Amino acid sequence: MFFVPEIIEKKRNGGKLSGEEIRYLIEGYVRGEIPDYQVSAFLMAVYFRGMDEEETTELTMAMARSGEMVDLSAIEGVKVDKHSSGGIADTTTLVLLPLAASAGVKIAKLSGRGLGHTGGTIDKLESIPGFRTELSKDEFVRIVNEAGAAITGQSKDLVPADKKLYALRDVTATVDSIPLIAASIMSKKIAGGADRIVLDVKFGGGAFMKRYEDALELARIMVNIGKLAGRQTVAYVTDMDQPLGLAIGNGIEVIEAAETLKGRGHKDLLNLCLELGSEMMLLAGVEKDKEKARKKLLENIRSGKALEKFKEIVRRQGGDPDALEDYSLLPRARFSRGVEAREDGCIEKIDALRLGLTAMKLGAGRQKKDDAIDHSVGIWLCGKVGDGVEKGKPLAVIYANDEEKLQWAAEEVRGAFRITREKVETRRVIRARVTAENIEEF
Amino acid sequence: MFFVPEIIEKKRNGGKLSGEEIRYLIEGYVRGEIPDYQVSAFLMAVYFRGMDEEETTELTMAMARSGEMVDLSAIEGVKVDKHSSGGIADTTTLVLLPLAASAGVKIAKLSGRGLGHTGGTIDKLESIPGFRTELSKDEFVRIVNEAGAAITGQSKDLVPADKKLYALRDVTATVDSIPLIAASIMSKKIAGGADRIVLDVKFGGGAFMKRYEDALELARIMVNIGKLAGRQTVAYVTDMDQPLGLAIGNGIEVIEAAETLKGRGHKDLLNLCLELGSEMMLLAGVEKDKEKARKKLLENIRSGKALEKFKEIVRRQGGDPDALEDYSLLPRARFSRGVEAREDGCIEKIDALRLGLTAMKLGAGRQKKDDAIDHSVGIWLCGKVGDGVEKGKPLAVIYANDEEKLQWAAEEVRGAFRITREKVETRRVIRARVTAENIEEF
Repeated sequence: MFFVPEIIEKKRNGGKLSGEEIRYLIEGYVRGEIPDYQVSAFLMAVYFRGMDEEETTELTMAMARSGEMVDLSAIEGVKVDKHSSGGIADTTTLVLLPLAASAGVKIAKLSGRGLGHTGGTIDKLESIPGFRTELSKDEFVRIVNEAGAAITGQSKDLVPADKKLYALRDVTATVDSIPLIAASIMSKKIAGGADRIVLDVKFGGGAFMKRYEDALELARIMVNIGKLAGRQTVAYVTDMDQPLGLAIGNGIEVIEAAETLKGRGHKDLLNLCLELGSEMMLLAGVEKDKEKARKKLLENIRSGKALEKFKEIVRRQGGDPDALEDYSLLPRARFSRGVEAREDGCIEKIDALRLGLTAMKLGAGRQKKDDAIDHSVGIWLCGKVGDGVEKGKPLAVIYANDEEKLQWAAEEVRGAFRITREKVETRRVIRARVTAENIEEF
Repeated sequence: MFFVPEIIEKKRNGGKLSGEEIRYLIEGYVRGEIPDYQVSAFLMAVYFRGMDEEETTELTMAMARSGEMVDLSAIEGVKVDKHSSGGIADTTTLVLLPLAASAGVKIAKLSGRGLGHTGGTIDKLESIPGFRTELSKDEFVRIVNEAGAAITGQSKDLVPADKKLYALRDVTATVDSIPLIAASIMSKKIAGGADRIVLDVKFGGGAFMKRYEDALELARIMVNIGKLAGRQTVAYVTDMDQPLGLAIGNGIEVIEAAETLKGRGHKDLLNLCLELGSEMMLLAGVEKDKEKARKKLLENIRSGKALEKFKEIVRRQGGDPDALEDYSLLPRARFSRGVEAREDGCIEKIDALRLGLTAMKLGAGRQKKDDAIDHSVGIWLCGKVGDGVEKGKPLAVIYANDEEKLQWAAEEVRGAFRITREKVETRRVIRARVTAENIEEF
């Protein structure tokens, strides 16, 4: 029998909690027997004192087991999941799902709705007319078995501990704690039932983690949790100081994903998808050599196989695959305008967060949980850091359904670009690859 | 308009809160608009980050103003209050109230009931047959005006913020934070309406603060809060590593107080009362020279004037003053026994906390808020650190109403004494005197 104030005090004093203590706390909290006010004090103590990897793994597992543990055994082969810590113009999942599936990887993706600058992957896919994101368990398993990949909304019963804890952290200034973030992400991945996990941990102005070192630490911890939980995990630490792709929105990110699968995507987004995709192929055991895996993925783009896979998934989930060819079938905003450069020069910096917030205020994202998303609005960038700009030529194009917001957004977008006369280097996207055995930094 | 998570985050990040932010938080909490879970996270952030003196004063004043601010203007002259941070065999208030009043100090004492090893001052006084501790405002003012001192239970409406915060701190491991302790004590003193305040901050095994440095820091902060709040405050830091007097209980502490006023008290208790009493005389302006004040108090003990004042206060509050002469009128325990020393030697250490817990389990104190107190039980020590002991002679006498508890307590009491063959120095009681201008350490 444990006494909650003693558990809080132990952590407050920098002690190490046992698995029993952590389970007592989480299970009691989910059952409603331990009140919010004790848990919020505990979370603040964790913010200051941290948790070691054993404690974080115990927390992760206690959270994962707080609800349904998804059983994917009806799907043949090794199931690989992919998670991004979230960023601006991060269309990776939309590209990667069909791309990796086209190369034989099985992806059973459970996804939450986004709260932030743009929608989550599910919101983006709902831009496609007819696309259904609430699949029954049977449908979900069948589509993965037949098409190689499917995506569905998370069951309400998946990791209830995380829902409760996240809502509490959000209002008690205890969100940005690395062990709490790691446990939140990994508990959902583990409860989601995948055998292997690829993580994309972003850092920089447009990411949750602002500093590379914090992102690397988060990656390292999550990889170790995966190992201790018996789910092999590989993490990449990637740059999110500027947007990853060019599109920030929902419908327009579907367009960017389709364009990328047609071989016309931005090299940064494409490269990251090839890197993560080849890693998934290795984890799934469909290929042993990373270079060969990458070539196979490129070949599937060139041959159209990857795009066909995207269409197949869309069709099987009730969506209109023609929308991936004829973009006018996607929701279209009433107004659009370019934001012109006022001088010649080179892009020195793009404030990703400012662009994200602008897109959100245009309607692309949610400020509150129950806000509706406008799938048609967004921002399409015309260049990234290191690219040249010409006076009078557009830096970006804005899509909006409100003329006033359109004009306001134009000023915001212009303010998000810093232009210089000097030559600027492009930014590297992939900065580290973390496995349980090794950290490679690039 | 403030946003609570931002206030929590500011403190979490080590920022300094404004008076407006602190008032917003406390007022909203008392009104029930800000939930416990945000306040407990805030309190834990304060535990780690602390508060500077301005913040602590703002917190104190916001708490003080959360309920009734007692108006003592109907009492003529300067009103002085005295507060002890609590200890074992701390009979000081019972002695000091009549002693200082006998020398012309006006003391309007509001007192809470104790939660701990023995009762509070009010519980102790209720050992005296007939003594009433719930006075009406008019009675209270009249007795102070006529007799110089009175004591009454705190109104339920005094500092509701402290009641709510203390209950929350108690279950969230946020009790031992110096600014929170300081604000809790000083908000009650300030709302209690006294003009000047004397504080006795104890440290050591039997006190809440274990370390001298922490007690000194707490004293320093409270003195400065008093200054900033316009209530001149002097604090003493005193030793509570062993019991202060010889009696631990309720009725037996009344006996010890009466004995001390008769000139037969233990020198440690007497000295502390003379020191605090003369300080109160200076603060009240009834004497300017500390040495003269001390002599006057000693003279009042020798002449019987101080004891007469005690009897007068008891009589005016409905109690039987004969009980201060004929102790058989006080509640008597059914059983008593001595705890004999098993060897010759000298007392090296007395575990005050263990004695306090033993007294509480005999029934002298409350474990929970609504527990009843047994006024007849307790422990009377026969010596203190530095005193010699003889094999077969008692270390202490225990009073109990249960034979089994009596035997159990005897073992506990014996275990609380450490006897050595070496000669041991007595312990100094008064270690520091703290004013807003100066810290004297002894």
